[in-house]
Amino acid sequence: MIKVGIVGATGYAGAELVRLLAGHPEAEVVWYGSKSYVGQDFASIYSNARGFTAEECRADDIEQMAEDCDVIFTATPQGYLGSILTEDILKKTCVIDLSADYRLSDIPTYEKWYGIEHKSPKLVEQAVYGLCELHRNETVGKKLVANPGCYTTCSILTAYPLVAEGLIDPDTLIIDAASGTSGAGRGAKVQNLFCEVNESMKPYGVTNHRHTPEIEQEISLAAGRNVVINFTPHLAPMNRGILATEYASLTPRKSGDGSVNYPDISEITAAYEKYYKDEYFIRLLPAGQMPETRWVEGSNFVDIGYIIDDRTHRVIMVGAIDNLVKGAAGQAVQNMNILFGLDERTGLTGMPLFP
Amino acid sequence: MIKVGIVGATGYAGAELVRLLAGHPEAEVVWYGSKSYVGQDFASIYSNARGFTAEECRADDIEQMAEDCDVIFTATPQGYLGSILTEDILKKTCVIDLSADYRLSDIPTYEKWYGIEHKSPKLVEQAVYGLCELHRNETVGKKLVANPGCYTTCSILTAYPLVAEGLIDPDTLIIDAASGTSGAGRGAKVQNLFCEVNESMKPYGVTNHRHTPEIEQEISLAAGRNVVINFTPHLAPMNRGILATEYASLTPRKSGDGSVNYPDISEITAAYEKYYKDEYFIRLLPAGQMPETRWVEGSNFVDIGYIIDDRTHRVIMVGAIDNLVKGAAGQAVQNMNILFGLDERTGLTGMPLFP
Amino acid sequence: MIKVGIVGATGYAGAELVRLLAGHPEAEVVWYGSKSYVGQDFASIYSNARGFTAEECRADDIEQMAEDCDVIFTATPQGYLGSILTEDILKKTCVIDLSADYRLSDIPTYEKWYGIEHKSPKLVEQAVYGLCELHRNETVGKKLVANPGCYTTCSILTAYPLVAEGLIDPDTLIIDAASGTSGAGRGAKVQNLFCEVNESMKPYGVTNHRHTPEIEQEISLAAGRNVVINFTPHLAPMNRGILATEYASLTPRKSGDGSVNYPDISEITAAYEKYYKDEYFIRLLPAGQMPETRWVEGSNFVDIGYIIDDRTHRVIMVGAIDNLVKGAAGQAVQNMNILFGLDERTGLTGMPLFP
Amino acid sequence: MIKVGIVGATGYAGAELVRLLAGHPEAEVVWYGSKSYVGQDFASIYSNARGFTAEECRADDIEQMAEDCDVIFTATPQGYLGSILTEDILKKTCVIDLSADYRLSDIPTYEKWYGIEHKSPKLVEQAVYGLCELHRNETVGKKLVANPGCYTTCSILTAYPLVAEGLIDPDTLIIDAASGTSGAGRGAKVQNLFCEVNESMKPYGVTNHRHTPEIEQEISLAAGRNVVINFTPHLAPMNRGILATEYASLTPRKSGDGSVNYPDISEITAAYEKYYKDEYFIRLLPAGQMPETRWVEGSNFVDIGYIIDDRTHRVIMVGAIDNLVKGAAGQAVQNMNILFGLDERTGLTGMPLFP
Repeated sequence: MIKVGIVGATGYAGAELVRLLAGHPEAEVVWYGSKSYVGQDFASIYSNARGFTAEECRADDIEQMAEDCDVIFTATPQGYLGSILTEDILKKTCVIDLSADYRLSDIPTYEKWYGIEHKSPKLVEQAVYGLCELHRNETVGKKLVANPGCYTTCSILTAYPLVAEGLIDPDTLIIDAASGTSGAGRGAKVQNLFCEVNESMKPYGVTNHRHTPEIEQEISLAAGRNVVINFTPHLAPMNRGILATEYASLTPRKSGDGSVNYPDISEITAAYEKYYKDEYFIRLLPAGQMPETRWVEGSNFVDIGYIIDDRTHRVIMVGAIDNLVKGAAGQAVQNMNILFGLDERTGLTGMPLFP
Repeated sequence: MIKVGIVGATGYAGAELVRLLAGHPEAEVVWYGSKSYVGQDFASIYSNARGFTAEECRADDIEQMAEDCDVIFTATPQGYLGSILTEDILKKTCVIDLSADYRLSDIPTYEKWYGIEHKSPKLVEQAVYGLCELHRNETVGKKLVANPGCYTTCSILTAYPLVAEGLIDPDTLIIDAASGTSGAGRGAKVQNLFCEVNESMKPYGVTNHRHTPEIEQEISLAAGRNVVINFTPHLAPMNRGILATEYASLTPRKSGDGSVNYPDISEITAAYEKYYKDEYFIRLLPAGQMPETRWVEGSNFVDIGYIIDDRTHRVIMVGAIDNLVKGAAGQAVQNMNILFGLDERTGLTGMPLFP
Repeated sequence: MIKVGIVGATGYAGAELVRLLAGHPEAEVVWYGSKSYVGQDFASIYSNARGFTAEECRADDIEQMAEDCDVIFTATPQGYLGSILTEDILKKTCVIDLSADYRLSDIPTYEKWYGIEHKSPKLVEQAVYGLCELHRNETVGKKLVANPGCYTTCSILTAYPLVAEGLIDPDTLIIDAASGTSGAGRGAKVQNLFCEVNESMKPYGVTNHRHTPEIEQEISLAAGRNVVINFTPHLAPMNRGILATEYASLTPRKSGDGSVNYPDISEITAAYEKYYKDEYFIRLLPAGQMPETRWVEGSNFVDIGYIIDDRTHRVIMVGAIDNLVKGAAGQAVQNMNILFGLDERTGLTGMPLFP
Repeated sequence: MIKVGIVGATGYAGAELVRLLAGHPEAEVVWYGSKSYVGQDFASIYSNARGFTAEECRADDIEQMAEDCDVIFTATPQGYLGSILTEDILKKTCVIDLSADYRLSDIPTYEKWYGIEHKSPKLVEQAVYGLCELHRNETVGKKLVANPGCYTTCSILTAYPLVAEGLIDPDTLIIDAASGTSGAGRGAKVQNLFCEVNESMKPYGVTNHRHTPEIEQEISLAAGRNVVINFTPHLAPMNRGILATEYASLTPRKSGDGSVNYPDISEITAAYEKYYKDEYFIRLLPAGQMPETRWVEGSNFVDIGYIIDDRTHRVIMVGAIDNLVKGAAGQAVQNMNILFGLDERTGLTGMPLFP
């Protein structure tokens, strides 16, 4: 059994790791780390776990966890892991980081968007950006995985094939997304109270949300050049789910007769299938059908739909994930499976919960 | 593998059976019966099942299903199964009925509360009332299981030990319950539209809800005499979950000195533990703690809490279940496991989903 | 124009006062008191008020408010007003207190249930319990109104006529209620986060909720003797609304022939009409119809329904209010109207908002 | 008093007209038209109206209504009014149509997008497109007002000034919007059941939603040439509210030195203020602040925010309205006020309801 430690087990992403790992046949949580609930039964904080664990929450002592655990998941505020992680820890154990500290390969970009100094810039080179469907081969053998953000996972996977195949102009890419409120974490903030969120839609972080450079990093990789995009997140009155609606202009091409034409739907479909047709966790919808977050709730799936607007020569791509699963804990487990040579799907095969 | 047929697979309870059986190692659905969606892919109706099944919906042909299936689940309107079930079918296969047709052992009671004539009263004798924790021994060897209602499962299990042990006066039992809206089914009715249900609480079926005689049947069994109770259901603006808050007067007793006393909390706890301490699916909370539906969502658990009010000499008992799981599909699978000699928990061990 | 000051204007009840008073032709808010937001525009905290006021939040300086305001509404934590209110203030202005400090006429009961010492017990005698439909005559000429609690307003009004007329046995009264989450206030607490409340029903304060003695005080008044009851509140996943479902045994009576009979539905109806038929804010439903919180949202109405269960000889009474209006700010405005000799309905005649 | 008839009073928009007109000092509803509920009390269908009207629903007899009413509001399915409206009716009364039948001045565009033949194309010329802030002067003296759609009202008003002033390139305009579920109407459809909508976000009508040509008609008017855009609506799990997030590229300009520059935030602000600074119902937010639907619920306000992204040279504009008020019934009342020479705000000055 893989011995798992979780730093930040009592946040929503940490608790989702606990839920997923309870159904994982090859792993068990041996350290429920917490800042606020040390000494309290984990199942008294998250009573869904009652009957599954009798363990108490312990301090987030990453040094000791490195001794006791085969893998450590860190679900912590930005900057925290960056300030305590060492080479020594990575010699003893693997770390899958659900924070943003090792996602951006460019340190100045990190420091600019997050507004904090990176305390362990050298470790960034050792990290792999753990978007499994794109980087699983690089992940094998690594000790440090930067688990992608929720919006970014959904946004990147939805657009990647069309950018990589040159079918759309990446400079025109606009991503408009909505997230369930669990993405805002379990901190006690007025803005996340039930009455503040319920019966309302709101944009936030417009032009400056921190997932922007992360999306740009991967889209630039696909495009083969630096790309800047617009990304606008919205808070939706629901617990889970991210829906990303993405717009881009189709790449115009000159026909033999000099007239301009555009990629058609069969080329779009072919591009998606080229990248994803063997991906278990990506469910491509028939052309014209659109994903809805209810169909992925509780699962690691990414549902992707797309349609061409012949009037504007744009393609509209839509992706849906569960922000706590594929957007956080589920992808982290998927990365663990890769690191430990297991079938990627292990522990992640439950059908989404509806309604 | 147990071959499973589902009559009414495209209702919420039927679809929840599909979800649960997808994770069951010993069973597979071979017949997705439907009245409205014959010929359409099941996964096009319930897209959470995309990637799990490529089967089409077929007619609800119970005669043919009896030939092809080891067990048939019927998730159908009241009266339907009663009008088509035969001895012949039961010779060929097992039937687990999620409707009310075989729950009430007294035919006139059924006909009065449901307002319909029972078309197969003789089969009622062959049926077992499948509240597993109370009747599992009688279930072994049966061919027809009457799977209990959602409110009833929660209501009965919450009060049963205290009635059976004589600690409360069953004539004073009042059950006030709230249910998520999936309990109302997937029929297209104005009253169940989002805007009608959202942001509202309402009682319904006050004094005449059909789960009343079912609760009374089992409470009477526990009491050893006929009991009538009050049961009031409410519709709550959420998808899943039943919370039953139950009130009863503690049985007064004469002390040696002639004064009156009442059962104390340790006796209450002892009664619950006597009946439930080895029950995997029943999670007794420490005295004074109360269940919440969020902690059981997606699971087959019944969380039960209780507290004594010393001022009024009443006990308040509260039970919580997921109406689609322990209140319908989950308990049906539990019954299947019993019928087929499997561990009762098979396929039902997922941790509840929160948030 | 009546000059209004609000202590605690930035809580939900305070902000609802602002909303209602914006539509009141005879009153205007001249002091937006706040503890947390001093110096900030009120409309930057509650942006629904944008365009209605350009005032800043000011400190909760009740001494100065007494000089500047004709009436002060206090929407503050329990114990606060009790510790600062003086005879001198009441000489200068009227105070309508939305906290519990002056609701209970019995000081030891207050101190026991609230766990704090009452710092101005003498002022309790000057206060009137401002449940308008029952105490409006006593309110005239008073300087201190104890505005009732949300659960209590709904619970008391729903049962009062039947207790007062002796049609039910008050010792059997059980009140099971659910509230929208705005009743929990705007404090930043984990338990009130969207993801904690959404998709869940939970009981709280079982046997010890502080509204219990307040309900008992008024029910005892109706009964003419001391009564203890059971009251169980639940948190429902919605913004506004209280639904109280109340159970009581009908008073048995000996007929001339020695047989026992019970009050029938016409007597129940007559009792409700006796007390409420001229009450604008109480909408009695036809016998057998039940209220739903959606029909009172945003308004000062109390909808009341009732039904007799002939099997158990109980009556089930159900009341519905908007907890922030009739349960707090609306009733407070109604009390202000009474104090200032206005039509009680002034500023409170908007139709409930649905959906 | 203006005598008002409503065709389709028992739909959500019709019932919202009833609510708003109950608070209108110069108008009263004299005909509650309905297709499904003829002969039933309006207040038995919409119990929020209990105490406000004792009228029964009557047939949708527009001929007779023309005799009895000063103005008729029609809240009916597309094509219905187009097939029954006549010159004769318009001679007798005013019609404010909440359907789409007279919104598009180009008949072929209407017939293409709605898939139905227009039965009264000549009347289109008599109609005014009743987006009050843009067309109020043309509305005076008209007998037929085409009340704009909900998405369109929000989308157009949010972008109009920047298009009209040439600050953005209208060909790059992309509108991504979300709506509460009341926008889908009160028809009994599975897709609008609580459990289907709750806890989910979904796009619909992608590339082909019927509000697209309506938006294009007005944006083209502002641009002075034909414009095609992308508009994507989403269904959000809430009752009311539309949020439109709109993207467009800033118009590049050559500086004196040949370099390219773009409009800055002060020019954007100036454009909005030029058009809206005296509009009561439009609340421009300070640059960088974003609207949220909770702040407009129940009101006729349009909240508009905007921000420039210096990296992509795009402006992001966001508008929020209540779809049933400014998006339907409220704007219809505003149009009635214009037609009858009243202050536009009459009956529409309530503060939005929060929470």
